[in-house]
Amino acid sequence: MSKLRVPIIIVNYKTYTQATGKEAIKLSRIAEEVSKKSGVNIGVAPQFTDIAAIAAAVSIPVFSQHIDPIAPGSFTGHILLEAVKEAGAVGTLINHSERTLKLCDIETLIAKTRESGLFSVVCTNNAAVSAAVSTLKPDIISLEPPELIGTGVPVCKAKPQVVTETVKRVKSINPNAVLLCGAGITKGEDVTTALTLGTMGVLVASGIVKAKDPKKVLMEFAEAITNST
Amino acid sequence: MSKLRVPIIIVNYKTYTQATGKEAIKLSRIAEEVSKKSGVNIGVAPQFTDIAAIAAAVSIPVFSQHIDPIAPGSFTGHILLEAVKEAGAVGTLINHSERTLKLCDIETLIAKTRESGLFSVVCTNNAAVSAAVSTLKPDIISLEPPELIGTGVPVCKAKPQVVTETVKRVKSINPNAVLLCGAGITKGEDVTTALTLGTMGVLVASGIVKAKDPKKVLMEFAEAITNST
Amino acid sequence: MSKLRVPIIIVNYKTYTQATGKEAIKLSRIAEEVSKKSGVNIGVAPQFTDIAAIAAAVSIPVFSQHIDPIAPGSFTGHILLEAVKEAGAVGTLINHSERTLKLCDIETLIAKTRESGLFSVVCTNNAAVSAAVSTLKPDIISLEPPELIGTGVPVCKAKPQVVTETVKRVKSINPNAVLLCGAGITKGEDVTTALTLGTMGVLVASGIVKAKDPKKVLMEFAEAITNST
Amino acid sequence: MSKLRVPIIIVNYKTYTQATGKEAIKLSRIAEEVSKKSGVNIGVAPQFTDIAAIAAAVSIPVFSQHIDPIAPGSFTGHILLEAVKEAGAVGTLINHSERTLKLCDIETLIAKTRESGLFSVVCTNNAAVSAAVSTLKPDIISLEPPELIGTGVPVCKAKPQVVTETVKRVKSINPNAVLLCGAGITKGEDVTTALTLGTMGVLVASGIVKAKDPKKVLMEFAEAITNST
Repeated sequence: MSKLRVPIIIVNYKTYTQATGKEAIKLSRIAEEVSKKSGVNIGVAPQFTDIAAIAAAVSIPVFSQHIDPIAPGSFTGHILLEAVKEAGAVGTLINHSERTLKLCDIETLIAKTRESGLFSVVCTNNAAVSAAVSTLKPDIISLEPPELIGTGVPVCKAKPQVVTETVKRVKSINPNAVLLCGAGITKGEDVTTALTLGTMGVLVASGIVKAKDPKKVLMEFAEAITNST
Repeated sequence: MSKLRVPIIIVNYKTYTQATGKEAIKLSRIAEEVSKKSGVNIGVAPQFTDIAAIAAAVSIPVFSQHIDPIAPGSFTGHILLEAVKEAGAVGTLINHSERTLKLCDIETLIAKTRESGLFSVVCTNNAAVSAAVSTLKPDIISLEPPELIGTGVPVCKAKPQVVTETVKRVKSINPNAVLLCGAGITKGEDVTTALTLGTMGVLVASGIVKAKDPKKVLMEFAEAITNST
Repeated sequence: MSKLRVPIIIVNYKTYTQATGKEAIKLSRIAEEVSKKSGVNIGVAPQFTDIAAIAAAVSIPVFSQHIDPIAPGSFTGHILLEAVKEAGAVGTLINHSERTLKLCDIETLIAKTRESGLFSVVCTNNAAVSAAVSTLKPDIISLEPPELIGTGVPVCKAKPQVVTETVKRVKSINPNAVLLCGAGITKGEDVTTALTLGTMGVLVASGIVKAKDPKKVLMEFAEAITNST
Repeated sequence: MSKLRVPIIIVNYKTYTQATGKEAIKLSRIAEEVSKKSGVNIGVAPQFTDIAAIAAAVSIPVFSQHIDPIAPGSFTGHILLEAVKEAGAVGTLINHSERTLKLCDIETLIAKTRESGLFSVVCTNNAAVSAAVSTLKPDIISLEPPELIGTGVPVCKAKPQVVTETVKRVKSINPNAVLLCGAGITKGEDVTTALTLGTMGVLVASGIVKAKDPKKVLMEFAEAITNST
């Protein structure tokens, strides 16, 4: 399994109407277009029902928003790693603050994704949790203080010391760890700051999905990355 | 919203490898073929990732295996009613014994499906729970004693009195209630017995999905219904 | 098992500091005193850790705030019916909106309490859920719209039609059902209204626990009952 | 806050009938007696309802089996740190395999116990999870492979390499970490092996609670510790 190219912008579609079904495909085409133009790696994390159609429609990396710690079998209503992979996902979010998980399950899921060649993007809420997760060596750790999600107040401005502290603690355990940050990211300058603080990109949701002109904002994000690296 | 045509056979794909991705589409085509040949209504309940492709490939009813009690918005990793509907589902299982739900959420979900024109198939584990659910007037109640699931011991033989008691208690609350039963159904005669006991069909999983020849078994089920009605 | 004497006021101590440990015993002595003076049945629902000391200190009914659907055995960190009973509880809340439960577990718990001679007080959030619960025949159903809890806006004033509708639907299923209502109850007149709407008392928390003078408010509640019956 | 004296034997009462109510007090007196005779530190982890009476009856350390990540307030049916502390607990188990927790909650609970002067004993299921937990610096980490719990097959014999690997990984992160191991411990020799493998004692449940002669077995455990140190 090759490594995930960083810096990266991952757009989390959550369960937003603006990023469901046909709208999800449209937004993914925009992300692909911006990625091609800018040369910056952009991934999307749509709802489970949209993974297959998006993976068929675009060539950028598609992530699942969650998988369950199950094997194939009798698990009605659960999310099977093998199913999201066959649908075309190349990785998955794990432990998003809107879908937090038990520690034992986070460990299982990181191991399972590694074995099956999927990228793991584990979300964390603070420096201590990030350090704990870093011992499990996921591909990416994404810091998102839940109190800032959806506020438009960027984590890298509101709590730069949390980002710095997280980078420091995580790197002391695993020097090769790759960090993103999220929550409140809405402008190119937020992305620039995120990179300056030691991250390799951002996990963004409403900042793109609910933007009046998602293409414009995403291009601004991508240019911030191009200009910083 | 028209009513769901009964009797009905609903095939729950759970997270079986034999009913994931391409295999899920194959099995759905078989179900469609048997439905057309026999004239019996057959629905399928695939994984979330497969709903859209199956709904595009076949004309039989497609059910989601679960939905979450959420509205569009910030619910990373959750199952949105609007998303499974746009993907092509006409209904959803609710409260399967492998995905049991809080009472307040079952109530919310039945109301939400009703408002949005999706069929609700609420699974229950015994007569008392079925009676409680019947006050909420879902489209279908499907009795599945969890201790019999996947055993090959059919509920209608192992516990005929539970089925009869359930039918009686549910009808005393809502005379128009439609009941299915499930768990351990593997043969045509199990389906016949299920109908004799007062149900309008079966919810089946491994009995079809893991059968050596799913088409043959499904045809046997369908003929049992044709011969009983 | 004798029946629980109604009308009743049940004071839920939640995890309030003002009703933990020594404070919980003090408050229970106040409740006992008011109950004796007024002749009105008053129960208390303290934290698990305080049940034994309170049951030893006072003669009024003590309720657990929750029990888990388990049998004795390997269930570290769970709440065992037999343990709260041996500690002196005569009943338990089930499905409080701050500790909502799966439908299958509510059914199990009502059956278990009945078998073991504990009173069941099942909390519900609306008329539909109350109707569903009434088929399971708990000793008491307590309606508490969660959006009003702790607001000081009494359910019987803010949503009298919800109380009336709940009483009507529940009685149509079980004419002997006993209903309480809760959420926002802080004055004697709220209790009077609650009884007028067809309930047999109230489940109250902050209205008493956080009152400047709990004895005075509780006496006001008790007198409202005495004057109404 | 002084440190917890080690080696230590912690007896988890789970929800065993043999260790509920009066029986729980009896067993705690036995533990106290053995602790005094042997000089070995022995703690007990009874049910919430029994903490206060046991803490009043004996002078050995009493642990809660769980606490919830809540503050005082509106949390009906939850376990409040302040309540178990006032009841007399000096510490708490966290994340037992029968009550596993979200990573963010484990982090919160370790921080909360530290601030309030309670000892934290965090249970883990394997070496990777133990390493993750060790970054959070709880007072004790207790390794218990869930598949061995209650089997009588001691972890230190069935999976000595898991114990050794856990000790090694945890110490590489935090050289001062204190490890226990549990699952299947029933004899003095199991305790000896546990210490030899680098732990500072055991977390035991059925091996003591369900023993025909708990005092004899507990004395055997204590002597194993005395002889090893």
